[in-house]
Amino acid sequence: MATLKLNKHMSIKNSHISVDCVIFGFDFENLKVLFIEQKIDDTLERELRLALPGDLVNLDENLDSAAYRVLTELTSIDKIYLKQFRAFGNPNRLKNEKDQFWIKKVRANPDARVITIGYFTLVKMDDVAPKASSFAGNTHWVNIDEIPELAFDHNQIVDQAMETLREDLEYKQIGYDLLPKKFTLSQLQRLYEVVLGAKLDKRNFRKKMKKTEFVVPLNEKQQGVLHKPAQLFKFNKS
Amino acid sequence: MATLKLNKHMSIKNSHISVDCVIFGFDFENLKVLFIEQKIDDTLERELRLALPGDLVNLDENLDSAAYRVLTELTSIDKIYLKQFRAFGNPNRLKNEKDQFWIKKVRANPDARVITIGYFTLVKMDDVAPKASSFAGNTHWVNIDEIPELAFDHNQIVDQAMETLREDLEYKQIGYDLLPKKFTLSQLQRLYEVVLGAKLDKRNFRKKMKKTEFVVPLNEKQQGVLHKPAQLFKFNKS
Repeated sequence: MATLKLNKHMSIKNSHISVDCVIFGFDFENLKVLFIEQKIDDTLERELRLALPGDLVNLDENLDSAAYRVLTELTSIDKIYLKQFRAFGNPNRLKNEKDQFWIKKVRANPDARVITIGYFTLVKMDDVAPKASSFAGNTHWVNIDEIPELAFDHNQIVDQAMETLREDLEYKQIGYDLLPKKFTLSQLQRLYEVVLGAKLDKRNFRKKMKKTEFVVPLNEKQQGVLHKPAQLFKFNKS
Repeated sequence: MATLKLNKHMSIKNSHISVDCVIFGFDFENLKVLFIEQKIDDTLERELRLALPGDLVNLDENLDSAAYRVLTELTSIDKIYLKQFRAFGNPNRLKNEKDQFWIKKVRANPDARVITIGYFTLVKMDDVAPKASSFAGNTHWVNIDEIPELAFDHNQIVDQAMETLREDLEYKQIGYDLLPKKFTLSQLQRLYEVVLGAKLDKRNFRKKMKKTEFVVPLNEKQQGVLHKPAQLFKFNKS
């Protein structure tokens, strides 16, 4: 049996189910996604491909636990907001030639149909120092509008995560996790612009935000800036 | 090999992935969910259990296609709004004794860990005449607050679908698919009440709805009612 040749790490995996995490970060100018270089055991020359951090689920592991494991191992962050947003199960999603090359190198059951469950999370980029881990080589933050062709169906997964993020920002103000605790309205406006993918009118935006209940002005201004310091606001979670 | 004994129907299935559909209906008074009686090939006496309509995914089938197949076969409706809302992958989700009894009777690979992808849809109950099908015995509409203990983790799946429906009604007015094209404000209020699970104040509700842009008054009143006919409204999809 093929499984006899496997190392311990592989034999505890379910061959049919994986999780993939779309980790969004915001540096106050651009929205970014964290990718890993596909790790491969030999030194064959080949094109470097980026992929979302993800892994096969362990045999007795819940889906959410698997996603937290991937995220924690990669970023050392725990207790983070992670949202399952969609399952991806196209029967051909791993059948591209380049994907097959990688899969045959690393997977115990390379012919298995794998469905993957997509999770997304929002992180303050300063909080995260991504590192190589059991499922990942180097890591890269990539601007949302500069994402290259990714492994598997990961471009589609990122697109779908963006759509969910847009809805969540619009309806539930969830994108505020990308901002520092105290932020300026310019930072908030830029966040809306990069998530919605559209320029917003500064005056209208400020008027609207000052009317809402979920942004509260503080008795504080920016510190250590060269320009005129802007007023700081906080997010009102209730 | 066990698969040699299987009939054709079973051998085209992927043992590891299923879909389950939460079909919501509204009879202008109660919100209901459509369930099937678990079909079983022999005539052993046993407790009747209800389950969501669902099936293993075919080997080369997309997840969405599988959900549409289940829905179409059961209800004869096609071209319906179907939304994937969550994957359920608890490793123990099929391990209850009663579930194991059924699984061993009907599944080719009863020990496989199956993750199921939950879909939900909203139907006008008049449009649907559910019928027994390849995966289902009799069917039953059950009031949302009278749902018994279901097979597998299906109670949890219904709860999660309800939560998604609540959000979608609140943010996207999606519940309007449960109403006829022309409806009264009383019917609309009742829909909100059963979905949100709370009584609403009639006067406030009417005031609020008349202010929104997504409900438009028609120059028409109810016909054939004994009481004073109420004004009709339509949903403004733009």
